[in-house]
Amino acid sequence: MSWTVYLSGEIHTDWREQIILGAKALDLAIEFTSAVTDHDASDAAGDVLGAQDNGFWRDHQSSKVNAIRTKNLIEKADIVVVRFGDKYKQWNAAFDAGYCAALGKPYITLHDESIIHPLKEVDAAAMAWAQTPQQVVEVLRYVVG
Amino acid sequence: MSWTVYLSGEIHTDWREQIILGAKALDLAIEFTSAVTDHDASDAAGDVLGAQDNGFWRDHQSSKVNAIRTKNLIEKADIVVVRFGDKYKQWNAAFDAGYCAALGKPYITLHDESIIHPLKEVDAAAMAWAQTPQQVVEVLRYVVG
Amino acid sequence: MSWTVYLSGEIHTDWREQIILGAKALDLAIEFTSAVTDHDASDAAGDVLGAQDNGFWRDHQSSKVNAIRTKNLIEKADIVVVRFGDKYKQWNAAFDAGYCAALGKPYITLHDESIIHPLKEVDAAAMAWAQTPQQVVEVLRYVVG
Amino acid sequence: MSWTVYLSGEIHTDWREQIILGAKALDLAIEFTSAVTDHDASDAAGDVLGAQDNGFWRDHQSSKVNAIRTKNLIEKADIVVVRFGDKYKQWNAAFDAGYCAALGKPYITLHDESIIHPLKEVDAAAMAWAQTPQQVVEVLRYVVG
Amino acid sequence: MSWTVYLSGEIHTDWREQIILGAKALDLAIEFTSAVTDHDASDAAGDVLGAQDNGFWRDHQSSKVNAIRTKNLIEKADIVVVRFGDKYKQWNAAFDAGYCAALGKPYITLHDESIIHPLKEVDAAAMAWAQTPQQVVEVLRYVVG
Amino acid sequence: MSWTVYLSGEIHTDWREQIILGAKALDLAIEFTSAVTDHDASDAAGDVLGAQDNGFWRDHQSSKVNAIRTKNLIEKADIVVVRFGDKYKQWNAAFDAGYCAALGKPYITLHDESIIHPLKEVDAAAMAWAQTPQQVVEVLRYVVG
Amino acid sequence: MSWTVYLSGEIHTDWREQIILGAKALDLAIEFTSAVTDHDASDAAGDVLGAQDNGFWRDHQSSKVNAIRTKNLIEKADIVVVRFGDKYKQWNAAFDAGYCAALGKPYITLHDESIIHPLKEVDAAAMAWAQTPQQVVEVLRYVVG
Amino acid sequence: MSWTVYLSGEIHTDWREQIILGAKALDLAIEFTSAVTDHDASDAAGDVLGAQDNGFWRDHQSSKVNAIRTKNLIEKADIVVVRFGDKYKQWNAAFDAGYCAALGKPYITLHDESIIHPLKEVDAAAMAWAQTPQQVVEVLRYVVG
Repeated sequence: MSWTVYLSGEIHTDWREQIILGAKALDLAIEFTSAVTDHDASDAAGDVLGAQDNGFWRDHQSSKVNAIRTKNLIEKADIVVVRFGDKYKQWNAAFDAGYCAALGKPYITLHDESIIHPLKEVDAAAMAWAQTPQQVVEVLRYVVG
Repeated sequence: MSWTVYLSGEIHTDWREQIILGAKALDLAIEFTSAVTDHDASDAAGDVLGAQDNGFWRDHQSSKVNAIRTKNLIEKADIVVVRFGDKYKQWNAAFDAGYCAALGKPYITLHDESIIHPLKEVDAAAMAWAQTPQQVVEVLRYVVG
Repeated sequence: MSWTVYLSGEIHTDWREQIILGAKALDLAIEFTSAVTDHDASDAAGDVLGAQDNGFWRDHQSSKVNAIRTKNLIEKADIVVVRFGDKYKQWNAAFDAGYCAALGKPYITLHDESIIHPLKEVDAAAMAWAQTPQQVVEVLRYVVG
Repeated sequence: MSWTVYLSGEIHTDWREQIILGAKALDLAIEFTSAVTDHDASDAAGDVLGAQDNGFWRDHQSSKVNAIRTKNLIEKADIVVVRFGDKYKQWNAAFDAGYCAALGKPYITLHDESIIHPLKEVDAAAMAWAQTPQQVVEVLRYVVG
Repeated sequence: MSWTVYLSGEIHTDWREQIILGAKALDLAIEFTSAVTDHDASDAAGDVLGAQDNGFWRDHQSSKVNAIRTKNLIEKADIVVVRFGDKYKQWNAAFDAGYCAALGKPYITLHDESIIHPLKEVDAAAMAWAQTPQQVVEVLRYVVG
Repeated sequence: MSWTVYLSGEIHTDWREQIILGAKALDLAIEFTSAVTDHDASDAAGDVLGAQDNGFWRDHQSSKVNAIRTKNLIEKADIVVVRFGDKYKQWNAAFDAGYCAALGKPYITLHDESIIHPLKEVDAAAMAWAQTPQQVVEVLRYVVG
Repeated sequence: MSWTVYLSGEIHTDWREQIILGAKALDLAIEFTSAVTDHDASDAAGDVLGAQDNGFWRDHQSSKVNAIRTKNLIEKADIVVVRFGDKYKQWNAAFDAGYCAALGKPYITLHDESIIHPLKEVDAAAMAWAQTPQQVVEVLRYVVG
Repeated sequence: MSWTVYLSGEIHTDWREQIILGAKALDLAIEFTSAVTDHDASDAAGDVLGAQDNGFWRDHQSSKVNAIRTKNLIEKADIVVVRFGDKYKQWNAAFDAGYCAALGKPYITLHDESIIHPLKEVDAAAMAWAQTPQQVVEVLRYVVG
């Protein structure tokens, strides 16, 4: 029995690496997946299909290309970790959480105590709230162990 | 054939009233539904089940009570309108959008041009992006007409 | 928008009546449904199909007839309340809770503090835990209000 | 064609080992899965996420972490065996049975004759009732043979 | 709460009328539905779309027209009763039973003791086996009462 | 028991009116629904959301607004009629047919004999092929009668 | 890409072997599965769980054990072949066909011309009707080729 | 993580080869699948089941055999590419697109700018519109990279 864990959300800190390395150190049978986390590449994902003058449509075109990947990976994941940092809107992270909730797919949120209140609906549908990547690794160790 | 439209998101401006009145003026066969939009009542929704010292668990308890309502109403809606204002995190609105996307339920976003980029994933899965409640009313008139 | 609430579990106290009367007093737009709660009638539900010498098969035959009713009513309900008393095994109540959980149907548990620990898995998938019928009525008032 | 069998329920006797060894002796192509069956570890599954003063929330936190595992394993299983011993409430076992029933996943109950009556709803939705682990092994031999 | 019961199978005796009259006499809130039970009309259901020389295709054309009706009515039914007489192949009745089983829709079989063995798979997935229309009426009275 | 029939496809002849009038003449209990069939209005359905210089995005915006309506109406329909005329590409009609096929929703095609071959995949998943609106009315009479 | 084909129905002739050997001769990448086809073993499948005096319950117990296997294998199959011979009731074969139809799983019927009419509903939902195992092999060669 | 991409639509140019070779050159972990693209073989797919005088039924028989393959492959695909050329009706391509849309399966359209308008509904539900096979390869490289 091997497991797949999708890592969603914030792309400006190394939380993904910490979880992946932590899981590796424990030799957990987990394959990690993720959206493309290179911000510029992600914004330009659709440009190959044609340049767009209009910012909305450029974003639209790129977001849909990104969604081909993320939709597939989220639906194939056994567990999703959704990270909210202390900056930016991060609506895509909350969107992924809602997507998981509707599918009945278990997800873990990862965020500081300072944003508990605005995340209360997202946390309410989560299976766990972690404050550090290390806690996520501990939970994964327990779950897939 | 009557329609049900769920109004999700921002609770600090009168966009819901504008849409409801606009639809009424046009005599559209639409029943509008919504989460409880009284902020304090919503935060306290679970308090009747027992006071919680811990802020996380108070939020958790209340959010789940709110979710009994919102989950039911979203799943029964034919169309969802998701409003993002220019303040606050509004992760619950993005969560609702993700929930709709996973269900294949058509939703319309309502937000200013200034937040196109952070909402690109949410807009990419939407059926329409409107900037004013009047535009939403026009779309509804066309759709249910 | 009217609501349907299924009342599952313990049949030896008047908790159903308390909830129904409480909802009526508040004039809530709720239709309440339930399994047949007459214990002897329920045990004999299948006898009309033929007497069974073997206790297992008599129970089997009756339980399946009961399930024609309960399966339909649970699947049609918007909300389920699952009551655990302080006596008996009440495995059917836990079974209903699991059934709701798999369907993604919101349910509220109703039980004393003394049985929190053995009900932890059932409560973990619930949207609320109430200790009194009055609390359930308050939650319903908020949810359907 | 290989099979996955999830073993749910009672953790105080060696019924899991008996089934696993019995299947091994017959060289059946079955992978067995299970919740974490170490009682103390299971109760403490969520403690890494933060200590909770309140017993209900400690249980809640741990049960949800356990559910990340059990939900995944039950949904991936081809067959579930649900064991009820003669002690304890074991509502989680009945909950798992209800969960399987709603998913249409075949399950086998394993319990003594003495608790036929309180388990009648759980047995009514089961594909088989066994009284001994050896009987379960025999059924599995037939089914996957 | 009203109920819909679909009556499937044998068309050469008056079992449908007996059930409908029996339910009426008891004033049960049940709407009964059924395939077109006029044998010749059913065989000719597709003829309006063009005469077919080939018997297979004539049957094919008519059966699909009939299926527009039966598929809709079975999926909308709360309960299905499937009747097997002592003559004819009645494979369509067994087909309907399999269709219900896959949908998780409760069905009751109605047949004599003499054909228990060939119907064992059909009965195994049923919620009840009745031998007379009167028994079916009694079960319905209990279930919808 | 009333029925809903969605009329999809060609908008340049009066086939919809013929079916609706035919059904009315027979007093059939059918509610007919349809996309907006005013070609110019349909092309402009999204213009209220903002003018688009780029033809692709104008079409995109309008088609998604139209899809809010059509997706809802197709999913609520009991039967869909898909009409292919002898002109134009009509890929939206074939798209609707594929949509119905994936949902398991019964549909009837309506087209001339001359286009049997290019429509063979669409017809293969249909429940009936009619050549005239009158034949569709006859089938509906039989089905809902 | 490998394929799984479930072979359902008649157990008194060697049609399964003919198809399996035919596919082998062509080196098709197909895994064939089936119910237990030893008649006596199948009838006795549940006996290990306890002897039953009553014929109905013995059949019931065994059929449910068989269904653990068949339900799993049918749901995992890509294609199902359903064989009807010229003897016996074979209601289980028609039941399997209905089960496949409700799941949207493609199935092929295999039967003589003499029983076209009683099988018309079963054939109407099938993707192909073959009269010989050789034809089935040819279709499989084409489909998986 | 490997990916499966189904290539649907036009069979008269070498767009499939271009995509497959392009992906190979980039060493992408993609398995490509497709309908049988030999036109004559496809038209004759059902002939082995019996010659048909009537053109409609010959097409019907063959299309259903083809659908055994295409339905399976589309449902197993992670991504579908749907190609529309500048000739022929290609309703089967639009049908496949609609099928994907209903399943929520991401698809990419591939067609010239000249047919944007008649394809607007098909494009509206697509995740990307490409004009050349090279663009499709670029998108796939990004998505599975």
